[in-house]
Amino acid sequence: MFTEEEKKALYKVIYKRRDIRTFQPTPIPEESIYNLLNAAHHAPSVGFMQPWNFIMITSQAVKERLAWAADKERRALAIHYEEQEAKQSHFLNLKIEGIKESPLTICVTCDPTRGGSHVLGRNSIPETDQLSTACAIQNMWLAACVEGLALGWVSFYKKQDVRDILEIPPHIDPVALLTIGYTDEYPDKPILETSKWEDRKKLNPLIYKNKWGENESL
Amino acid sequence: MFTEEEKKALYKVIYKRRDIRTFQPTPIPEESIYNLLNAAHHAPSVGFMQPWNFIMITSQAVKERLAWAADKERRALAIHYEEQEAKQSHFLNLKIEGIKESPLTICVTCDPTRGGSHVLGRNSIPETDQLSTACAIQNMWLAACVEGLALGWVSFYKKQDVRDILEIPPHIDPVALLTIGYTDEYPDKPILETSKWEDRKKLNPLIYKNKWGENESL
Repeated sequence: MFTEEEKKALYKVIYKRRDIRTFQPTPIPEESIYNLLNAAHHAPSVGFMQPWNFIMITSQAVKERLAWAADKERRALAIHYEEQEAKQSHFLNLKIEGIKESPLTICVTCDPTRGGSHVLGRNSIPETDQLSTACAIQNMWLAACVEGLALGWVSFYKKQDVRDILEIPPHIDPVALLTIGYTDEYPDKPILETSKWEDRKKLNPLIYKNKWGENESL
Repeated sequence: MFTEEEKKALYKVIYKRRDIRTFQPTPIPEESIYNLLNAAHHAPSVGFMQPWNFIMITSQAVKERLAWAADKERRALAIHYEEQEAKQSHFLNLKIEGIKESPLTICVTCDPTRGGSHVLGRNSIPETDQLSTACAIQNMWLAACVEGLALGWVSFYKKQDVRDILEIPPHIDPVALLTIGYTDEYPDKPILETSKWEDRKKLNPLIYKNKWGENESL
């Protein structure tokens, strides 16, 4: 069903995808935006509930308010590193979001009420609705990569601030703010790896056989 | 960076990927298994925490116990449809897992303690560790698809049963049981769509502009 070339293409995009925080203001073609959203919409979802919505933010005024919410959270979090001075200054020097610069921010939400009271599978594990939404985000991210676009997942905010700014009802979960645009810098390695914040772990020790803790080597 | 063919290949796999519940016993080549795990390991993760482990279940005895845990949950859930007789019999006729038939089940777990006490981003939104794990699962699913393999995400179980069976520590989250193998039946549409359990939603009404509820047409 898939050729050797198609297989290589998938692995190429999976390995090349990066989380980007620096954007050019160049507008994004409508076709690319549609491809991103349609890729997200074809993610798997528990009980086929498709719990996602996509709020497309292009208004500069709205972006300024979201950037304020993220910056406020960044400054609050920096306080938790106050006992490790080097780590705190490292943290404060990381660029953690590009909401104001990127031409488009998408707020991806999850509606836990979609599909009614007894969604297949979600009845056992309620957070599968959020996990489905994360699968949609991953599809969108891979799509952005092949479209030549950079994407950054911003996870610094209080959900209630984002609900207030985007007028999102209280039961809806604003799972992610995704900043999207073209970029000059698409690094080979994750920014947090290059900046020595964290290393990529070796795969083998993460694999167990038939039970937790029993190492398997592949 | 990506050719038109590579772009098409990604969208093909995103659109063709299905959730499968019927498997052949044929063993899976080691190389394909490695490709699946490495794809998962290259998912994005909050603060680059890489919170996942992969428990590879091939023991028939362990699979029997997991299948028992899933079946017990399925029977318990059926009771919640007792007031809708048609829905209940529809539910009971759906094949919801293929743990015993598939040659391999992978339990993907999430360790919320990995990366220490103050993981970048997870400090604001704690469940981003599970969302990262879901991104890893989606990568693995797309990889399975290009490898010609079928994958089914089983979400019918009590987490404590799976912890007991696989000797998983209490703080580790068994996010998913993934059944993997070759299949005779790789349908064009989701099983829940074909069996009239749920329809695929139209994309346009899910898209809003600058705030919740404001329709955007693309």
